[in-house]
Amino acid sequence: MSSNANTIYYTLTDEAPSLATCSLLPIVRTFTSAANIDVKITDISLAGRILSGFPDYLAEEQRVQDGLAFLGELTQDPDANIIKLPNISASVPQLKDCIAELQGQGYALPDYPETPETDEEKDVAARYSKVLGSAVNPVLREGNSDRRAPGAVKQFVKKFPHSMGAWSMASRSHADYMRGGDFYSAEQSFTMAQAGDVRIEFVSPDGTVSVKKELPLLEGEVVDSMRMSAKALREFLEETMQDAKDSGVMWSLHVKATMMKVSHPIVFGHAVTVFYKDLFEKHAALFEELGVNPNNGLSSVYEKIESLPRSKREEIAQDIHDCYEHRPELAMVDSVKGITNLHVPSDVIVDASMPAMIRNGGKMWGPDGKPKDTKAVMPESTYSVLYQEMINFCKTNGAFDPTTCGTVPNVGLMAKKAEEYGSHDKTFEIEEEGVMRVVDASGNVLTQHDVEPGDIWRACQTKDEAIRDWVKLAVTRSRQSDTPVIFWLDRNRAHDIELIKKVNTYLKDHDTDGLDIRIMTYVEAIRRSMERMIRGSDTISATGNVLRDYLTDLFPIMELGTSAKMLSIVPMLKGGGMYETGAGGSAPKHVQQLQEENHLRWDSLGEFLALAVSLEDMGIKQDNQAAAILAKTLDTATGKLLENNKSPSRKVGELDNRGSHFYLGLYWAQAVAAQDEDPALAAKFAPLAEALAGAEEAIISELEQAQGKPVQEEGYGYYHADRAAVKRIMRASPSLNAILADANT
Amino acid sequence: MSSNANTIYYTLTDEAPSLATCSLLPIVRTFTSAANIDVKITDISLAGRILSGFPDYLAEEQRVQDGLAFLGELTQDPDANIIKLPNISASVPQLKDCIAELQGQGYALPDYPETPETDEEKDVAARYSKVLGSAVNPVLREGNSDRRAPGAVKQFVKKFPHSMGAWSMASRSHADYMRGGDFYSAEQSFTMAQAGDVRIEFVSPDGTVSVKKELPLLEGEVVDSMRMSAKALREFLEETMQDAKDSGVMWSLHVKATMMKVSHPIVFGHAVTVFYKDLFEKHAALFEELGVNPNNGLSSVYEKIESLPRSKREEIAQDIHDCYEHRPELAMVDSVKGITNLHVPSDVIVDASMPAMIRNGGKMWGPDGKPKDTKAVMPESTYSVLYQEMINFCKTNGAFDPTTCGTVPNVGLMAKKAEEYGSHDKTFEIEEEGVMRVVDASGNVLTQHDVEPGDIWRACQTKDEAIRDWVKLAVTRSRQSDTPVIFWLDRNRAHDIELIKKVNTYLKDHDTDGLDIRIMTYVEAIRRSMERMIRGSDTISATGNVLRDYLTDLFPIMELGTSAKMLSIVPMLKGGGMYETGAGGSAPKHVQQLQEENHLRWDSLGEFLALAVSLEDMGIKQDNQAAAILAKTLDTATGKLLENNKSPSRKVGELDNRGSHFYLGLYWAQAVAAQDEDPALAAKFAPLAEALAGAEEAIISELEQAQGKPVQEEGYGYYHADRAAVKRIMRASPSLNAILADANT
Repeated sequence: MSSNANTIYYTLTDEAPSLATCSLLPIVRTFTSAANIDVKITDISLAGRILSGFPDYLAEEQRVQDGLAFLGELTQDPDANIIKLPNISASVPQLKDCIAELQGQGYALPDYPETPETDEEKDVAARYSKVLGSAVNPVLREGNSDRRAPGAVKQFVKKFPHSMGAWSMASRSHADYMRGGDFYSAEQSFTMAQAGDVRIEFVSPDGTVSVKKELPLLEGEVVDSMRMSAKALREFLEETMQDAKDSGVMWSLHVKATMMKVSHPIVFGHAVTVFYKDLFEKHAALFEELGVNPNNGLSSVYEKIESLPRSKREEIAQDIHDCYEHRPELAMVDSVKGITNLHVPSDVIVDASMPAMIRNGGKMWGPDGKPKDTKAVMPESTYSVLYQEMINFCKTNGAFDPTTCGTVPNVGLMAKKAEEYGSHDKTFEIEEEGVMRVVDASGNVLTQHDVEPGDIWRACQTKDEAIRDWVKLAVTRSRQSDTPVIFWLDRNRAHDIELIKKVNTYLKDHDTDGLDIRIMTYVEAIRRSMERMIRGSDTISATGNVLRDYLTDLFPIMELGTSAKMLSIVPMLKGGGMYETGAGGSAPKHVQQLQEENHLRWDSLGEFLALAVSLEDMGIKQDNQAAAILAKTLDTATGKLLENNKSPSRKVGELDNRGSHFYLGLYWAQAVAAQDEDPALAAKFAPLAEALAGAEEAIISELEQAQGKPVQEEGYGYYHADRAAVKRIMRASPSLNAILADANT
Repeated sequence: MSSNANTIYYTLTDEAPSLATCSLLPIVRTFTSAANIDVKITDISLAGRILSGFPDYLAEEQRVQDGLAFLGELTQDPDANIIKLPNISASVPQLKDCIAELQGQGYALPDYPETPETDEEKDVAARYSKVLGSAVNPVLREGNSDRRAPGAVKQFVKKFPHSMGAWSMASRSHADYMRGGDFYSAEQSFTMAQAGDVRIEFVSPDGTVSVKKELPLLEGEVVDSMRMSAKALREFLEETMQDAKDSGVMWSLHVKATMMKVSHPIVFGHAVTVFYKDLFEKHAALFEELGVNPNNGLSSVYEKIESLPRSKREEIAQDIHDCYEHRPELAMVDSVKGITNLHVPSDVIVDASMPAMIRNGGKMWGPDGKPKDTKAVMPESTYSVLYQEMINFCKTNGAFDPTTCGTVPNVGLMAKKAEEYGSHDKTFEIEEEGVMRVVDASGNVLTQHDVEPGDIWRACQTKDEAIRDWVKLAVTRSRQSDTPVIFWLDRNRAHDIELIKKVNTYLKDHDTDGLDIRIMTYVEAIRRSMERMIRGSDTISATGNVLRDYLTDLFPIMELGTSAKMLSIVPMLKGGGMYETGAGGSAPKHVQQLQEENHLRWDSLGEFLALAVSLEDMGIKQDNQAAAILAKTLDTATGKLLENNKSPSRKVGELDNRGSHFYLGLYWAQAVAAQDEDPALAAKFAPLAEALAGAEEAIISELEQAQGKPVQEEGYGYYHADRAAVKRIMRASPSLNAILADANT
C-alpha cells in the first residue's frame, strides 16, 4: 500500500468549478474524515500551471509546486485516486489574458512571444506552449475512458425532462464537410512489427531531406500520417459560403481549436481569411506589419488596429462591413454584442456547439438574435459525417425524447495519448512544396505524402497496450451492463483498418459468449445506436479518442440535457482510478453571472457522482467499509437532491451552487445516519443531520441574502483568484460554516 | 410441345405503345418468319377488355374475343412466350372516358353506374370493376419478377448520361408519413399450418357477425390483415398541411390510386376533403345530392357542378379559391392549366412521381411553374420510409451520378397475386364501429382489429409456392450475376416476420456457398444499396410485390433516367416466360403530341430488349438456332442504335418512334447478314440490309415529311382507334413499306 492509499486528490481548476470547490470541499471533508480519508487539493489551474513553469522569473514566495507533474507521477501508482474537475484548455488569447492578470498581480512573468526570435523568447514560448490547449488531460488520462449516464440521473430526466427544440422535416440545417483533400482522404497507417525508431522527414524538390521529428515506437504501435490540402480547404470554404448565401442559411464553423491546438487554429484562420477575403487582401501589407493573426479570429484584427489612427480604423471597419454584403449571415456567439462565429477560435467548440445546435431543432442564433437554420461547416470529414447523419435522423424522426430514449455510454480509446490527441508535436504547417514521409531506421518509407505550402500534415500514434486495454474495457462494460457494444471503426479508413485487425485479435482473449459485439463505420454505428436509442435500448459505443470526446457530449446532451451529469471514469492502466466530473467545460458564463449578480449556477452534480465512484473504489481497493457506506449514501443523497429539485437554478435569488451543496450535505448526513450497516458511523452523523435540518431556513436565507449585487471582492482575479476572497464569496452562510466547524472538531 | 411452341404472343395495349406496335411489328415479323416463329397480336387494351365483357350488349360483329382470358390460360403452358407492353390501369374517370368513346363509335355499352342499385346496374358495375385499375398484370404475372438494367443500356448511359437535378444540402423537401394508425402499425399476420377455409367477418357491437368474404387457403399460405384509421389519417393530413404552410414548402400527395384501386382512392378522397374542408363542409348537402365523389379528385366537383346555375358555380369557385388562402401551395401536375396534385387521382402515381421529384433535386412544380421544395405526403408508412431515406441520402451525398453508379436489379415476389396486389377483393371501407377479424374453420380468431366508420381494413395473401420460387430466383440471379442480394424484409413487421422464417428455410434448399445474402429492413436495405451504388457496386433487391413495383421505377430512373429501359422478365411458375417492355406507363402525353404534331416520341427500346430475351428463350426452349441468332443480333442492333443516337427525339421534325424502328430494322438486318453461325440466314438478310441502307435517305425524308401537322384521321379514337387509321399514321414511309412487303414475299 502506497502513501496515497487513503488520499483522494481533488483538483483545483478554473472558473466555475474552482469556485464551487471552495464551497463543496468543507462539506465533503466532514464526511471523508470519518472514513480516515484525506481529501487533498492539487492546483492544476491555468494560472497555477503558468506560475509553476517560471520559477526563475518569480520571487521565492511566489513560486508554486507543479501540481500537474505531481498528478502525472501519481497516475503510475495503483493506489491513485484522483477527482478531476473541468479546467481551461487555453487558446492563445486566453493564455495572454491570464499572463496579463498575473503580471497585474505582481508576478514578473515574461510576455507571450507571438513570434519568438531570440533564444530567450524561444525558451519562453516553449514553456508557454506547454500550458496551451488540452495540456492537462493527456498527462492525467493514463488509461482508457468509461463514460456513462448514472442510473439516478437517467431516471430523474425521464421524470423531469429537459427541453428539446422541435425539428421540422423541412429544416434546411445540415453539416457540410470536405469530400476530398482532407485528412480522411489522405490517411496512411501502419503497425510496427517490432519496436524501433522512425523519422518524420521533409524532402524538398531538390532532394534535400530534413528530419522534422524522431519517434521511438513500441512493438505493435499504430502510426498514421495524413495531410489536409490548404488549397482544397480554401476552395471548400469558399464553396460553402457561396452555397449558404445562395440557399439562405447561416454559415457557421465548428472546430476544436482549443484541443486540436495546432491544426484547428490554422483551419480557423483559413475560414477567417476566406470569409473576409477582400479585407485581408486589401490590407495584406498592413496586417502583416501589425502582426494580425487570423488564426486568433477576427478579434485579432480589432485588437491590432487599435493602435492605428481613427480614420484608418474606420476604413477597416467599413471594409469589414463590406465583406458581409456578399457573404451569408454568420451564426452568432453573442448577437447582442455582435460576436460572430469567426470572432475568437475558442468560442465555438464542435463537441459542444453541434449538440447544442441539434438540441435546438438544428438552429443557431442569427445576427438579429433569432434562431435560424444553419450550414454547420466542419471541414475535416472523418467525424463530421456523423453529425449530418444525426441531423437527417432528427429531420425524419423528430427531436429525441429524453423521457423514453435509451442511452449510449462510451468506452474510449484514450490511454497513452492515443490517436489525434497525441498529435500536436507531430503536426506541421507545410512551408514549401515537397514530400512529407515517415521512414524507419532501415530507411524504408512507411508513409509518404506530396505536400504544398500551407498544407497541414500530421502523424498520430496509438500504443498497442492502450488498444488491448480498451478492448478489454469494452467487453467488461458490455458484460457488466448487459448491453451490446459497437466498435466504431471505419473499414475504409487506413488507421481503422489496423485497429480492426487488433480488435478482432484481442477479442479472442475474452469470453464474449452471449455478447452482441459489432464493428461498424461511424455512420452505420451512430445510425444503429440512434435507431435503438429512440426505441429505449442502450448501446455502448467503443470508439477512438476524438469520437470519445465528441460522443460524450453529443449523446448526453440529447439524453440528459448536459454532459456534466455523466459519470466519467478513467480506469488507469496501472490500476489507479481517475474520476472526471462532467465534460461540460469550465463555464466562463457562470463566472460572469457570479461577478454581476453573486449567483453561481454551476451544478456540482458531476462532482457528487465522481466522488461517489471515487469512494466506492476506495472502499473496494483499500477494504474501507466506511468509504463504501459513504459512497452508497452519497448516491442516495444525490438521488434525493435531484428528486427534490435542489439543483442550482439559473436565476439570481433562487437556490444556487452553494445552496445545492448545503442540501447535498443535509441529505448525505441523513442517509449516513439512517443506514444500519455501520451503527457507529450512523450515530456519528445523526447530530450533523439534525443540526443541518434545523438550520435549513437560516442557511438558505443567508445564502439568498448574499445574492443580487455584483461581487466586489478586491483580491478577486479571474484566472488567479485570491482564495480568501473566494472563500468569503463561496462560504456565505455563517450558520452553515459554524455547523461544519463544529462537526470537524 | 404445345401448339404455342413457335408463337410469340405480342400484346396490343393502349396509348403510345399500341401506336408503336403498328410500326414495329411488320419489321419484327420480317425477321421472325425466317426462324419459323409466328408473332401473334392479342388485344388486351382497355377498350378491348371492356368490349369483351359485354357481348350481350353488342351486335354480333362488334363482339371481341377476351384476349386477357386467353393469355391468362396461356400462362399455364410451359411453352408460353408473351411480350407484354404497358397498358392503362384505368381509374374511374378513365374508364368513363373510354365507355363514352366506344358509345360514340356505336357500341351500345351501358353507362358506368356510379351508385348501382338495380340488379342490372350491379351486374354492370361488377363487369366494369373487372377492368378497373391493375386488371391485366395480376392475370398475366403467373410468376415472380426479374428486372434489371441491360448491360448495353447501362454502358450507353455511362457514356451519355441523362440529366440529374442538383441537390442542395439545404433542401427542405422531405417525405412525410403516418407515425401510427396506419396499416403498418396495425398489421397482423399468420401462416396456415394446413390448407383450409377462413372467413373475414365483421362483428358489430351487439355481437352480430356478418361474413364479408370466405377464402380458401393453401398450406403454408401467409395471410395478413391490417387497418388504417380514418381518424388518424385525417388528423395526419391536416397536420401535414399545417406544417407545409408553416414551413413554406409545397404540399403533395403520392399514392397509387390506379393500382391500389380500392384503398388509395379512399385515401385520396380524404386528402381532398381535408384540404378543401371548408368547401366540402359548406356544400355538404349539395355535393351529396350532385353525387360529388372526392375519391375522384377535385375534378369531380367541377364536373358535377356544371349543371348548376352560373351564380352557384361562381360561388363554389370562389369557395374553392378561399380554401387556398389558408392552405400550403399544392404541387402541380400542369401549372399552365391549373391542374393540381389533388385534381385527379390517376395523375400522380407514387412509384413514378417520387423518383421524378428525387431526380429533380427534390423539387416539384409550383403554381407559378417554378420548381420548389415539397412535402411529399405518403400516408401509409410501410414503404414511404425508404423515400425519406433516399431524400436524406441525396441531401448528404448529392444527386446520383449515372456515369459511375452501380445498379440495383430486382427479384420481386409477384406470383399468384402476392401480397397487397391481391388485396382488392379483401379491402373494405368500414361502415360502422365494430371488429374486423379473420376466423378459421374451427372458429379460432386468427387476426382481429377494432374498427371505426371510415377505417380501411384489408387482408392480403401470399402463397407458399410463390415464396419458395422467389427465394430460388433470388439465389439464381445472385449466382448468375455474381451480385450480393438483400431480402428487404422488416423484422418489426408482422407479415415480414412470417416471410423471414420462410426465406431462412428455403435458402437451405440451395447452394448459397460464397453468395452474399442478407435480410434487412427496407431502410437498412435501401441505405446499403445506395452506399454501394454510389461506389459503383451492384446489389440485388429481393422484395415483396409493392416494393418490386416501386423500386423498379425508383432505381432505374436514377440509373437510366427511365424505367422503360429495364429488362423485365417473368419466369413463370409453370415454365413459360413473359417479357414486359418497361414499366413506364402508357404515356398519354406522347399521344397528345402525336395528335397535335404527328410526332411520336415513344421509345420502343423496351420492346427491343424484351423481344431479344423472348427470342433467346425460344432459342433455348425450342432448340431453335435461328431464334438464338436473331436474339443475339437484335441485341447488337439495339446497342448500335443507342450508340448512334437513333432513339426517338422529343422534338417534332426530328427522328421519332417510326424512324427509330427503321434504324433498328436496318441494324438488325446488317447484324444478321454479318454473322457467320448460320450462313443461309445471313444470305437471306443481306438483300434486306442492302435495301434498307440504300433507302435510308428516302425513308427518313418521308417520315420527316409526315410530321408537323395535327393528325386528322377520321377514324382515330383515343382508346379504341381504327387500326386502318393508325396504320396510315404509323406506317408513313411508302419506301419502307415497299421494302418490307418485298422481303415478306
